Amino acid sequence: MLTAAENELLTQTGPGTPVGELLRRYWHAVAPAADLTREPVRPVRLLGEDLTLFRTENGGFGLIGDRCAHRAISLAYGIPQANGLRCAYHGWTYDPDGHVVDMPFEAACLPLKIKAYPVEQLGGLLFAYLGPPPAPLLPRWDLLVRDDMNKTITPTLLPCNWLQCMDNSLDPAHFEHLHGVYGNYVMKKLGKPPMLHPGRHVKIDFEVFEYGIYKRRLLEGQAEDTPDWTVGHPILFPNILAQGNSDRMSFQFRVPVDDTHTMDCIVDAVRPKDGEPLWDTPVVRDDPLMYDETGRILATYINRQDEMAWVGQGSITDRTIEHLVTSDKGILLYRRVLQENVERVQRGEDPLGVVRDAAKNFPMIQIRRGSQYEGFRGGVPEGQWGGFQTAVVSA
Amino acid sequence: MLTAAENELLTQTGPGTPVGELLRRYWHAVAPAADLTREPVRPVRLLGEDLTLFRTENGGFGLIGDRCAHRAISLAYGIPQANGLRCAYHGWTYDPDGHVVDMPFEAACLPLKIKAYPVEQLGGLLFAYLGPPPAPLLPRWDLLVRDDMNKTITPTLLPCNWLQCMDNSLDPAHFEHLHGVYGNYVMKKLGKPPMLHPGRHVKIDFEVFEYGIYKRRLLEGQAEDTPDWTVGHPILFPNILAQGNSDRMSFQFRVPVDDTHTMDCIVDAVRPKDGEPLWDTPVVRDDPLMYDETGRILATYINRQDEMAWVGQGSITDRTIEHLVTSDKGILLYRRVLQENVERVQRGEDPLGVVRDAAKNFPMIQIRRGSQYEGFRGGVPEGQWGGFQTAVVSA
Amino acid sequence: MLTAAENELLTQTGPGTPVGELLRRYWHAVAPAADLTREPVRPVRLLGEDLTLFRTENGGFGLIGDRCAHRAISLAYGIPQANGLRCAYHGWTYDPDGHVVDMPFEAACLPLKIKAYPVEQLGGLLFAYLGPPPAPLLPRWDLLVRDDMNKTITPTLLPCNWLQCMDNSLDPAHFEHLHGVYGNYVMKKLGKPPMLHPGRHVKIDFEVFEYGIYKRRLLEGQAEDTPDWTVGHPILFPNILAQGNSDRMSFQFRVPVDDTHTMDCIVDAVRPKDGEPLWDTPVVRDDPLMYDETGRILATYINRQDEMAWVGQGSITDRTIEHLVTSDKGILLYRRVLQENVERVQRGEDPLGVVRDAAKNFPMIQIRRGSQYEGFRGGVPEGQWGGFQTAVVSA
Repeated sequence: MLTAAENELLTQTGPGTPVGELLRRYWHAVAPAADLTREPVRPVRLLGEDLTLFRTENGGFGLIGDRCAHRAISLAYGIPQANGLRCAYHGWTYDPDGHVVDMPFEAACLPLKIKAYPVEQLGGLLFAYLGPPPAPLLPRWDLLVRDDMNKTITPTLLPCNWLQCMDNSLDPAHFEHLHGVYGNYVMKKLGKPPMLHPGRHVKIDFEVFEYGIYKRRLLEGQAEDTPDWTVGHPILFPNILAQGNSDRMSFQFRVPVDDTHTMDCIVDAVRPKDGEPLWDTPVVRDDPLMYDETGRILATYINRQDEMAWVGQGSITDRTIEHLVTSDKGILLYRRVLQENVERVQRGEDPLGVVRDAAKNFPMIQIRRGSQYEGFRGGVPEGQWGGFQTAVVSA
Repeated sequence: MLTAAENELLTQTGPGTPVGELLRRYWHAVAPAADLTREPVRPVRLLGEDLTLFRTENGGFGLIGDRCAHRAISLAYGIPQANGLRCAYHGWTYDPDGHVVDMPFEAACLPLKIKAYPVEQLGGLLFAYLGPPPAPLLPRWDLLVRDDMNKTITPTLLPCNWLQCMDNSLDPAHFEHLHGVYGNYVMKKLGKPPMLHPGRHVKIDFEVFEYGIYKRRLLEGQAEDTPDWTVGHPILFPNILAQGNSDRMSFQFRVPVDDTHTMDCIVDAVRPKDGEPLWDTPVVRDDPLMYDETGRILATYINRQDEMAWVGQGSITDRTIEHLVTSDKGILLYRRVLQENVERVQRGEDPLGVVRDAAKNFPMIQIRRGSQYEGFRGGVPEGQWGGFQTAVVSA
Repeated sequence: MLTAAENELLTQTGPGTPVGELLRRYWHAVAPAADLTREPVRPVRLLGEDLTLFRTENGGFGLIGDRCAHRAISLAYGIPQANGLRCAYHGWTYDPDGHVVDMPFEAACLPLKIKAYPVEQLGGLLFAYLGPPPAPLLPRWDLLVRDDMNKTITPTLLPCNWLQCMDNSLDPAHFEHLHGVYGNYVMKKLGKPPMLHPGRHVKIDFEVFEYGIYKRRLLEGQAEDTPDWTVGHPILFPNILAQGNSDRMSFQFRVPVDDTHTMDCIVDAVRPKDGEPLWDTPVVRDDPLMYDETGRILATYINRQDEMAWVGQGSITDRTIEHLVTSDKGILLYRRVLQENVERVQRGEDPLGVVRDAAKNFPMIQIRRGSQYEGFRGGVPEGQWGGFQTAVVSA
């Protein structure tokens, strides 16, 4: 249970807020690169800042403020140039550093500059860094770098604070109930067989490592040498959940749009089986939240059930009324790590997991994953495990 | 004309407000029971409180707070159990008294309790009592108890304060104009014959009785022994309008959802004519407000015209600009009764119409009704009286 | 660049605000008259005031407050009478001066009056005057009076402050870029040829005259005797843009609905060519803003591109971050004229362009127009000039 002030501190993401400043020390997924191929200029909102993401005619990327310095029209109407973005209204042109480099009607170009942030592309995603220079390296996580897997990117906008997603990831026990018992209840109402065996948790554990926190679980009937318990899978600090194994893995980037919205950007990667083709490029899927007549989210598969739980806690959940119990010990650990790293940033140090050593970053950062969810698979019909979704492939 | 402070006092319904506390001394219709058969867990809002209404596997009902005590997820995602409602996230289970009776992952169940209110079923409706114990008896109004009538329940959410509905019910004269003149204007625009004879009111009168206020009217051409004048029909204090006669009657429950929303729950009951079947169960109809291109409510029948007038007065109507005249004397009486009963509650007494005497309540409370609207029927084509509606039967 | 206080002063339109009081010295277009033929009672909002516009059974017009003096129901539900508007609820009737002239249930009609403003019809439009009496003459602008032209009226509600429209009209240079470069970019994305030659501006100039401000431009390749430079075209103070020539002309009335909404009411008039019929009455078109998946306005023709720019500056644009340059000198002039006329009104004088001399007003006020946009037409395919629209004719 937190005080209202503590809850506010942990959930504010804007410039100058303690956690907002911590989050600004990391690169954040801002959009699938393919979205910019389809439409090269897009308004985006990230950490409470309104910005314009664009792809130049040369294929470079830029992320600059949302308003022209001239008369404040939205730069989302801008026209991509070889060297930047030209405003629709009077043609003032911005390079990716935010400098005005052309004022068509003026004798000379005034030395104006607007907000600009670096953008890098990796694994089909564009990442942005909104913190102070020098920017750290964009972490070359294995899933993003590996070229032997077929990847699917599903970004979903959620009307809730990012920390609710993280509370969930540090809480292994919910799996048994939210996906087991509730998931099976949803299936039953739809006339389908169970989607999960709600295996009982015997114990859970957590460990801080170089890039975040490993979580581990042991279920009834599992031997202690199961990778679920010996390895587990990590939360890459501060806001990425990594799951799977070397043949099938996923990342969930929980990107704070602002204090009350989060972009849950899920990347699934699967190694093609023998004979299956390797895709040229990641597929982008559109799978927005859907609601029933009473305003409840329809949640027919694991990820959507998690998103349902986060949104179901409210816009910014009221942690002054929560009652944390033994199953929440990972949440307490995460909050402590969050607080410690807020203080590190306030002391001018790099926080947990920031990468500046190219030797560690190349060719990629391998993440051990051992979570197979095997204890949840027993007795579930083939093809029904994890429920079902009906998303639309849009790019 | 009221002061702003007086208007605020009369229209606030939340916990701790004077009228809110008065309203909490009565049972309120919260949903048709059939809605819970279709979907057993529903988020509801009543008197400004967000709650979760549910039907257990055993067919009992509960009304508890909207947030799990664990980590504040909405209990609207809960799963009905034999003994209560199980939270979707981690399985904490609440009995209908709000006690946590199961915490699946914990060694022992902590002694936690959330808000809970009693629920009773009568006449196809669920009623809730949000006041202090001991709860009074749920009044066994004749329309709810009688089993020789076919009943239709139409709940409609209105974006306005409940008191606007009551102002209307204490104001007989509006009938002549809103349903007569305006109703006929609507019919004319639709190419239909008149829906009502706009009979002129000669006099109106009101009388406080054990359960509320009787209103009576005499129209031009009517003899003084007409039941419209000798009996009239009552407003059951504080928020029910009762109409009709012993063969065809209706109730309108104007349930305050919050200060700016009211659920107008209309129950129509008709005694089947010779040979007509008696229905097994009330029919629930869905008939939401519809709007034209200018934002005005489409009002083609009597009840909808009343709802139009209430909503047309604004979210909370500004009574500082009203000019009450002789036709509004019932409104002044109602406000006085409201104020007197606010004071009764503040003195610790039961307010008007609260039922605690089982002898009076069983087998039912008979309500005399004598209003036939006969003066409004003259010369109106058969089948056109009262306009027409096109609602959808949903259960 | 303005201070926040200066920007607030220039953009506030409500009663009692400095610019709001200035705007109240002019007649404003409030609706096409044909709209009232179709539906004779309409809620309208003008200069931040909620009002009811109606057409009596006799064909007269009225503009009165939005609430009945009795119990505050919306008068938008009123029923037109020969002498005014009858309230739907109890039949209180208002004449066009706002006096209550009938109270059906009362022995005598109380001497009540609500807000009322004069309305006049000209050229297919209804105009209202919200200022103090005596009202000036409704200006008989040539386009409104001439009966040898076919007229089209397109009112579009915009979610932005009116002053952004005026900034645009005093800024000739935007034409080259917004309609030339950006317009051609939009065409290219749609697979269409260019809609405009983006002719370079050599010089721009402005001149205050009896009714407002003339603006003039000279483009590369144009001789100094071009009417674009010798005549130009005017902004009729404070909020009308007049364009065209004697065979084809248009007005844009930028009517402040409130501080954050503007009705852009465009009237196009074309003299029929030999053999073409002359229409009986203006055509009213419905052409609301449309948005793409990223929330940007679809702008495929000149007027819509202007509207896009105004809305693209935000609800009330932040002029504290603007950087005005040489191309903005007309904007500075307009703001000075606006300020001067605010002061005139504060001294009790008539502001610029108010018409009280019938000799000047009859038969009409001829406006010289010399802007042909000829410098923008070179090399553009016939039929493609100015882009394309797909609006719906609704009356």
